[in-house]
Amino acid sequence: MQFTSERRLDDGVLEREFILDEIPGILWTPASASAPVPLILLGHPGGLSRMYPRLADRARHSAAEGFATATIELPGSGDRPRSEAAEQARADLRRALAAGEPVGDEIVDRLILPLVEQAVPEWRTTLDALLALPGIGGPVGYSGGVIAIGTRLAVVEPRISAAILFAGSFVPRAVFEEARQVTIPLHVLLQWDDEGNDRQAALDLFDAFGSEEKTLHANMGGHTGVPKFAGDAAAQFLTRHLK
Amino acid sequence: MQFTSERRLDDGVLEREFILDEIPGILWTPASASAPVPLILLGHPGGLSRMYPRLADRARHSAAEGFATATIELPGSGDRPRSEAAEQARADLRRALAAGEPVGDEIVDRLILPLVEQAVPEWRTTLDALLALPGIGGPVGYSGGVIAIGTRLAVVEPRISAAILFAGSFVPRAVFEEARQVTIPLHVLLQWDDEGNDRQAALDLFDAFGSEEKTLHANMGGHTGVPKFAGDAAAQFLTRHLK
Repeated sequence: MQFTSERRLDDGVLEREFILDEIPGILWTPASASAPVPLILLGHPGGLSRMYPRLADRARHSAAEGFATATIELPGSGDRPRSEAAEQARADLRRALAAGEPVGDEIVDRLILPLVEQAVPEWRTTLDALLALPGIGGPVGYSGGVIAIGTRLAVVEPRISAAILFAGSFVPRAVFEEARQVTIPLHVLLQWDDEGNDRQAALDLFDAFGSEEKTLHANMGGHTGVPKFAGDAAAQFLTRHLK
Repeated sequence: MQFTSERRLDDGVLEREFILDEIPGILWTPASASAPVPLILLGHPGGLSRMYPRLADRARHSAAEGFATATIELPGSGDRPRSEAAEQARADLRRALAAGEPVGDEIVDRLILPLVEQAVPEWRTTLDALLALPGIGGPVGYSGGVIAIGTRLAVVEPRISAAILFAGSFVPRAVFEEARQVTIPLHVLLQWDDEGNDRQAALDLFDAFGSEEKTLHANMGGHTGVPKFAGDAAAQFLTRHLK
């Protein structure tokens, strides 16, 4: 992990960009901390530059609660190399949406499964590097982004002890089976009036999760309009489990 | 409204039992308050004595947040006179459940609609009396109990400015139509693994509510096992809207 830039935000939060195995990422740490702080991995739909304002906002709120946060670019997004297969799947998806056709399982599988296969090991390698830094301890939480990635991470990465999942992206059928293996506490956010999202699939996925503690928070406001109080409640969930 | 008993709970909360139009009720007010406090009407499924421990617990938490709370017995419950039709509907319901049969709309209508018709005016009369007391001001919230009663109150009682509804009881078809007329902020609690509850009906009802701000919190723990953090989140909702 190589740090490429470092600056203090106006609230004192330290923001450092890094590169790890050619993947760009950002690490935010609280202005001051006397002991190693817990860590939250911030998921997102891909495109760090575009997502930066919202990610930095979540990072600053988390820092105020005493958490470090970190994120990395997704495979095929931002400046990372495109995969021909993923680009083709994305084009097929756009075509189906533009034609008002249902998005078939086959397209969803081609779009999401390779992304999960590649992104999850990258997150785990990043986690290795982050937990080796002075000032960052555990426990570790995961928050947001592509729900299939968060679900896989919750299954395979034992260092993640609680996760916020955003039920707002396509879910391959295989992920419903995987969801049954999740046992960590989950806080699932669903935008009820998200017209581009399959609400029934989100509810089915929530039902499938094997966790003894799982909570669904459904709100109004459209895909990107998660209300502030819902963000606060999600943050409280992680604080409850990571502190 | 005639007070029939008065005592201080160990945290200083003043608990007063009252009778209004032959209906028994309980009023809890904070240990001390310098100005008139907002009021929360506490719904329940009927049977004040049986429900007392849980109601008093909610009342004490609300008092700590600076709220008065009050509840009244439901028609046909506790010591209040039984209606033959309601008893018949309850017997028919029990028979259907015991036989493992689906509970028909007709039984639900006979069980719930007359209850709503009688209970809602009683709550409104109680509200008149409570708001006339010194030390109790507004705004007014409603919390819990039979969801058809809470829905009707949210439609017809303009003094109620936010409501917590518990999606855990039978919903007559007519209530889905009524739900579209609700416009106040709603916080709906659903116990996801409540086996005696129709989860799909609860989700359909949530969908039907006309409120611009509506939130569904689904949790595990069975019908009576609302987790403490979910109760806290519901309390935060009322604090946000009534303070």
